[in-house]
Amino acid sequence: MNIPFPYLLMLGESKDPLAIKTARGIHYWRPEKCMGQLRLNDDVPSLNLPDIDIQTAAKDGAKTLVLGMANAGGVLAPHFVPYIVEALNAGMNVASGLHQRLADTPAIAEAAEKSGTALFDLRHSNETLPVGTGIKRSGKRLLTVGTDCSVGKMFTTLALEKTMKARGLSATFCATGQTGILIEGNGIAVDAVVSDFIAGATEALSPDCEPNQWQLVEGQGSLLNPAFSGVTMGLLHGAQPDALVLCHEANRDTIRHLPHMPIPNIADIMELAVRLAKLTNPNPRFVGLAINTSALSEDEAKRYLDSLSNQYGLPATDPVRFGVDNIVDNLIHVFEE
Amino acid sequence: MNIPFPYLLMLGESKDPLAIKTARGIHYWRPEKCMGQLRLNDDVPSLNLPDIDIQTAAKDGAKTLVLGMANAGGVLAPHFVPYIVEALNAGMNVASGLHQRLADTPAIAEAAEKSGTALFDLRHSNETLPVGTGIKRSGKRLLTVGTDCSVGKMFTTLALEKTMKARGLSATFCATGQTGILIEGNGIAVDAVVSDFIAGATEALSPDCEPNQWQLVEGQGSLLNPAFSGVTMGLLHGAQPDALVLCHEANRDTIRHLPHMPIPNIADIMELAVRLAKLTNPNPRFVGLAINTSALSEDEAKRYLDSLSNQYGLPATDPVRFGVDNIVDNLIHVFEE
Repeated sequence: MNIPFPYLLMLGESKDPLAIKTARGIHYWRPEKCMGQLRLNDDVPSLNLPDIDIQTAAKDGAKTLVLGMANAGGVLAPHFVPYIVEALNAGMNVASGLHQRLADTPAIAEAAEKSGTALFDLRHSNETLPVGTGIKRSGKRLLTVGTDCSVGKMFTTLALEKTMKARGLSATFCATGQTGILIEGNGIAVDAVVSDFIAGATEALSPDCEPNQWQLVEGQGSLLNPAFSGVTMGLLHGAQPDALVLCHEANRDTIRHLPHMPIPNIADIMELAVRLAKLTNPNPRFVGLAINTSALSEDEAKRYLDSLSNQYGLPATDPVRFGVDNIVDNLIHVFEE
Repeated sequence: MNIPFPYLLMLGESKDPLAIKTARGIHYWRPEKCMGQLRLNDDVPSLNLPDIDIQTAAKDGAKTLVLGMANAGGVLAPHFVPYIVEALNAGMNVASGLHQRLADTPAIAEAAEKSGTALFDLRHSNETLPVGTGIKRSGKRLLTVGTDCSVGKMFTTLALEKTMKARGLSATFCATGQTGILIEGNGIAVDAVVSDFIAGATEALSPDCEPNQWQLVEGQGSLLNPAFSGVTMGLLHGAQPDALVLCHEANRDTIRHLPHMPIPNIADIMELAVRLAKLTNPNPRFVGLAINTSALSEDEAKRYLDSLSNQYGLPATDPVRFGVDNIVDNLIHVFEE
């Protein structure tokens, strides 16, 4: 899979800024892929991209209409179908991270077939995946692991890629979730594969590569999240990481959506991740901590990061506030010098 | 899902005894469900069930034709289709553990629809599953965990059910794989669900129950199998086991199909399983070790089991050779007295 760009980002009709989180992520990390935005009314928050209609976008060379809005239940609203059909008829592909499969709407399937365009359903994999083997691959891998879901693993991984590239290192982002796949244009939604193939999918996603190349694998879930730990485990064994980065959100006390479940201790997650990672890598090492400190003032954040850094003997940062230079410094120190 | 019985067991056409392993398991554990066998030639090993043709079976009340043979690649051989269609037309349901979906063969889908019979594709789940929550459920649960795949977890779990029932305990077998589901008539193939739902599927499979009831959850894979650890992890967190039984095969040195991967140490797996299980159960405890000693003589087996029993302070047995009474004794001692 390779989702062709430039993209026209469909932002939908909701005025809720959270509804366009995916589109915002694509635009933030890959502005060069985004030709414009399509808003169905003026109340929809703008990404400050040009507002373009489908015909104009297609004429100007847009390759894919990206459904960059989150919908309740992941369902495709029926009144969005005409826009999708119009884009397909105009020769654009359509990519969707919704649960509902695009091809399950007959009008969409027909239009795609007639126009010879592609439908990218990122939550549904048609690929035949291998099962994992644990065989050591060439090149180097880094994996972000978290104390929970939604603590900044994707952001951290992309920030590391950007900073490493700016330092002249060879780094690739390996996307494992819908938003990451839309950003990168390829990847595998590991939480959407059949569970027998989690590790195999991760291995396929980060194959043998040049000895000096770093594959930066986007983490998912948490080893101690009772809903998604299986995904995290398969990802950890499949990624066979040389380097690990711990992701955490300051002041989050309970697991997302599970108020009866306390957030695991950072030290526990780190110790557990290293222990389990040793199954497929002889010497996995944490190189830093990436903390979402949005709940703290800047001063509080700095104090908290300092205390974590002292406690674990590793650089700690908030990638949004302070970048990830200190983690990359340490990665270079540990692995490249 | 509830697969209606009596079953007619389709044994296929191969003379390889391994090809009828699933049918053998069904007949061994649930002889009362098996009306007869269907062999396509005389070289096919017999289960010593009556050889019955489809029409006779249907007339005598057989409810489901079970495809109890393993096929290369899990594919349905085209010349088996007429038998399946005949059974459907005769009013029987059809159950299959093959990778290839029965309903994907148009003649089969049509016959099922016309006759109002059901197709049970055990490797494909159409159920809408919840995600896991880790909320504590009433009743008690036991999970078998192994040092690898195919070390006797299903056999051990079924042996425990039989022995516990014989002692007057309330015990239910919760099937998590194809053969187990055919034996029990219901269950969820957890390795076939989308990976986000492994724990949720396990929770749905072992819901709240009476305080004195034991749900015996069939384990899958291993926490240290690089291909399938994700399934095992989700199963462990979803099952929230009170009791654990360790399964291992004597003299197996490397992980199945992965000769570069040494079998994990029994002590490591036990310590890891308890540590991880604590996420969803405050006090998970091993109650015994079930060892496949088929590679050893009876004397060697007894010496090996004695040494394990001393080492871990737990009863050790080979369920096939010596039954599981000693494990059930200990379970009663720890939990019921």
